[in-house]
Amino acid sequence: MYSILSDATICSPKGFIANGGTIGIKKSGNPDLAILKSIVPARCFGVFTQNKVKAAPVKLCERVLKDSNTISALIVNSGNANACTGLKGVDDARRMAELTAESLGVDANKVLVCSTGIIGHNLPMEKLEKGISEVSKSLNESGGNAFADAILTTDLIGKQLGANVSTEVGNVMIGGCCKGSGMIHPNMATMLAFITTDIELPTAFAAEYKEIINDSFNSITVDGDTSTNDTCLLIANGQSKVIYNDLSLSEQGDFRKALYEVLKQLAIKIVLDGEGATKLVEILVKGARTKEMARNVSRFVGNSSLVKTAMFGEDPNWGRLLSSTGSSGEDIDGDAIDIYIGEHNVVKNGCGTGVAEDLLKKVVSLKEYTITINLNLGSAKASAWCSDLSYEYIRINAEYST
Amino acid sequence: MYSILSDATICSPKGFIANGGTIGIKKSGNPDLAILKSIVPARCFGVFTQNKVKAAPVKLCERVLKDSNTISALIVNSGNANACTGLKGVDDARRMAELTAESLGVDANKVLVCSTGIIGHNLPMEKLEKGISEVSKSLNESGGNAFADAILTTDLIGKQLGANVSTEVGNVMIGGCCKGSGMIHPNMATMLAFITTDIELPTAFAAEYKEIINDSFNSITVDGDTSTNDTCLLIANGQSKVIYNDLSLSEQGDFRKALYEVLKQLAIKIVLDGEGATKLVEILVKGARTKEMARNVSRFVGNSSLVKTAMFGEDPNWGRLLSSTGSSGEDIDGDAIDIYIGEHNVVKNGCGTGVAEDLLKKVVSLKEYTITINLNLGSAKASAWCSDLSYEYIRINAEYST
Repeated sequence: MYSILSDATICSPKGFIANGGTIGIKKSGNPDLAILKSIVPARCFGVFTQNKVKAAPVKLCERVLKDSNTISALIVNSGNANACTGLKGVDDARRMAELTAESLGVDANKVLVCSTGIIGHNLPMEKLEKGISEVSKSLNESGGNAFADAILTTDLIGKQLGANVSTEVGNVMIGGCCKGSGMIHPNMATMLAFITTDIELPTAFAAEYKEIINDSFNSITVDGDTSTNDTCLLIANGQSKVIYNDLSLSEQGDFRKALYEVLKQLAIKIVLDGEGATKLVEILVKGARTKEMARNVSRFVGNSSLVKTAMFGEDPNWGRLLSSTGSSGEDIDGDAIDIYIGEHNVVKNGCGTGVAEDLLKKVVSLKEYTITINLNLGSAKASAWCSDLSYEYIRINAEYST
Repeated sequence: MYSILSDATICSPKGFIANGGTIGIKKSGNPDLAILKSIVPARCFGVFTQNKVKAAPVKLCERVLKDSNTISALIVNSGNANACTGLKGVDDARRMAELTAESLGVDANKVLVCSTGIIGHNLPMEKLEKGISEVSKSLNESGGNAFADAILTTDLIGKQLGANVSTEVGNVMIGGCCKGSGMIHPNMATMLAFITTDIELPTAFAAEYKEIINDSFNSITVDGDTSTNDTCLLIANGQSKVIYNDLSLSEQGDFRKALYEVLKQLAIKIVLDGEGATKLVEILVKGARTKEMARNVSRFVGNSSLVKTAMFGEDPNWGRLLSSTGSSGEDIDGDAIDIYIGEHNVVKNGCGTGVAEDLLKKVVSLKEYTITINLNLGSAKASAWCSDLSYEYIRINAEYST
């Protein structure tokens, strides 16, 4: 059994302390440094950007997690992504880890580093030196909200969520926060997500975690671009004394469902806070031959500019949906496709069904609705969640000048 | 030797007659039926949409060209795409071919059919029956312009071009016309292109034609979606008495270059006339391991909404260019990438070079410019041509209501 907790933070699970602070990286004077510590080394699972242009902190995290899968602390700065900064950037990221390790009294090889913000500029290391020392001293069990605030860039809303999973041997807590599409010079939309839990997870959970990421953070689309810094970390410190491998299959399933729900809802918060977004539309693809096929089609359709502008215009445009499905690159049968807008079957066997316009208008004028595409080829399904493409997206992205 | 002819039509090559007419498919009263005939059966090469949702006329053309690679005539209607119309649509497309064949006194199995316009509605066959008979009677050697006009939907400008290739054994003419992104209920952007030539081409030229299409019509991006009706036909009737296989290698090269130039410039006309386009930007990718890699990166970058909004905003945003290059899905080295905006080297080995903003602003405020991305991995290169993403694109695509 599990329940979603809307007021949880990354410090809700046992044995995590954190805080955030303002050290002057951002000109705005908003919080820009966040540190999390687990009171014991914790198993960490990381999923990173597939972009071949990787920021220095991403390279550092990948190396740390390759050497060992346990970490003691995580430091995040916002306001400067330390991306496209060459060897100096790599040195700076390492120095951030070292400074954090010194301040917290942990091993520097067990500190992860994340950065988000402006790219192509070196980090202000003097500010970081002083700031890391100060924030490190202030970590506490109530610091989750301050941590979550300090990782934001131009997000309009904070994004936190957690869950409680009750098992025969005790309660497990999950806490998470993330940041999404921010307007950062020269304008990237970096996604960072941090999930803590006090269950003990086996190394093999990496595969499950990747699947969960695929169905949550990898299934949202604001504009289809992947940033240089995207990072999703899951940190499990075992302090609840509940051991995943010792749970019944049903309890393991509960934990995975709770974790998925937390990640999915956090991911959806990013879409809702997407640049200029006025809609949240689920593209549910059914009847695919494989899960992979379902995912590819749902993401392709959810990422189509023609589909997204129709959503913004509240136009129940089944032609664009059908055409976009057909151009997804997957080997599908155009004459087998059924499409539903809300509950209305607008396309049957690749032909329009003539549903009355006013019925469809009622659906597409909602802020949130679902489009279902049945490929009628198999039994696999997947969802993607997308925002629309609005004037505001253009304004934010075109008028924000470097 | 070859020269580009801006006033050529599809009737400029010997042995082609054509015309266009207004038969009432379009409510606007604009021309909507076009017919082309070759006075002798001509070899035809076709490249069709990769969309798995194919309109009935595309299915017909693919079948005709599979059975035989010579055709006698081509009929095109605009205003109704005969797409998503099921078996009735297939019957209607075949009936169009039969009516044309009867009127022109040719074999119905040698008539190609193209349609563009509204989707999901059956063709008005009574209007077509009468119209085909009338337009067929009026074909003549000066009808190329009327043909080109009648294939347009909401294109703002007509698109025609040709070339003359002089060889030791005589002159070869090439004539072409195309239509691009139109706003059609329920809003597709169908591309049709028709190229005629009076050279005699061997069947094996299909491979060369495909390469040329790949580097021209397949290398433009307005919004990344592929329509249900896209069709590019090359029709060679041999009436110049010049035989491609008998030419010297150098003369064959001239013909291919002339053909490429015609197709490329026609393709660029489509970008310039793209919905809401204010810019035409060439994305030249160099130093790729393979041509395929170069094409994929250039098309991916040219199709990025973040890149395209920066173009619209005249923001010399190298960060988005670098990040988009990295997220193209190709196996590239982020630390090896060089990027040029116009002549200015803005990224060297994956790091910003600090070129003064005002120098870059001068380039990106031009209507047409080139962005060069050197992957520094090999020697292959390719270009894509893209438009920007403007308020007008959103307005046209969102506010045009079904």
